[in-house]
Amino acid sequence: MKLYDLTLSGNCYKVRLFAALANIDLTLVAVDFMAGEHKSAEMLALNPFGEIPILVDDKIVLRDAQAILVYLAHRYGGEAWWLGEAHLQGEVVQWLSVAANEIQHGPNTARLIEKFNAPKDKHRAIAQSKQILTLLEQHLSANSWLAAGRPTIAECAVFPYVALAEEGRISLAAYPKVNEWLLRVKQLPNFVAMPGV
Amino acid sequence: MKLYDLTLSGNCYKVRLFAALANIDLTLVAVDFMAGEHKSAEMLALNPFGEIPILVDDKIVLRDAQAILVYLAHRYGGEAWWLGEAHLQGEVVQWLSVAANEIQHGPNTARLIEKFNAPKDKHRAIAQSKQILTLLEQHLSANSWLAAGRPTIAECAVFPYVALAEEGRISLAAYPKVNEWLLRVKQLPNFVAMPGV
Repeated sequence: MKLYDLTLSGNCYKVRLFAALANIDLTLVAVDFMAGEHKSAEMLALNPFGEIPILVDDKIVLRDAQAILVYLAHRYGGEAWWLGEAHLQGEVVQWLSVAANEIQHGPNTARLIEKFNAPKDKHRAIAQSKQILTLLEQHLSANSWLAAGRPTIAECAVFPYVALAEEGRISLAAYPKVNEWLLRVKQLPNFVAMPGV
Repeated sequence: MKLYDLTLSGNCYKVRLFAALANIDLTLVAVDFMAGEHKSAEMLALNPFGEIPILVDDKIVLRDAQAILVYLAHRYGGEAWWLGEAHLQGEVVQWLSVAANEIQHGPNTARLIEKFNAPKDKHRAIAQSKQILTLLEQHLSANSWLAAGRPTIAECAVFPYVALAEEGRISLAAYPKVNEWLLRVKQLPNFVAMPGV
């Protein structure tokens, strides 16, 4: 099973993190993002959105880190990682949407601006980061984990860009419960880091 | 089962549309959005994000239209709407992420600007709308449906704000395959519309 991957991408790290936690073997295929390889004809044939990660498992090709997490958890995650009950899956998907939207346009974008000079609206990214971190702090004041009362793929989707927030000059000092949760995730068996985490 | 709802919200319509297609009974609770009722203490207790839709099914409370769609399809959708296979769920989630991100920041935002005077970046919303519509057109040139070769909750998540795009002055004239798909969705048994669709 191949993961088209970039070491510095938090979206790719979502998948690497889950694969490590769930003991799933991935063959990493490095994509030369800086040279624009993700926009090459070969890569666009795999993912017309021109983004990574991309997972190729025999004849199955999936784009979008959240979709890849659902696939891997369901097919290979076993009982520890696959939640059969409808309302627990709903709880998880709430946070997959947060990862795809609020986290993407908050701390992820702030980091793209600071670390990679992306031409994006810095004030907006900072405001959106504070908003979602405040909501996360509130949720984690009453819950140890994001969904279902236990570690799930929601952690893998949300953790990376929160853990990388300070690379986007978003301070986490005001969010003690978020910091405790980051530590809980880091203490999960088989946890792997990435540069900046 | 109660849906906290606003008639003019495409996000609420995602849920109303799926409930109609799958013959699921919902009791609609109108939220006075213009008066800020979604930010009231009672509503924030149900959804700290201060957004609608919110689904309340006995003791289960879910926010985020995409999460509600997963829950309803899984619990009440039956075989016609619940895809058991991991890779088909992955395909569906790809489009739930698109609904939560690219559609939200493209045609949804363009409509918020034009119809509700939202103080957002119009040029960005137009650019993002064109980008996602082009990708949708490409996908629908080779596929009748978004995922799994059949109508799924991906349609319910993506259809509303694409069908409402012209309310945001985003023309759909250049996207014939998108128009054909909109028509296919409208012809599904038990389809319901909303104002503007």
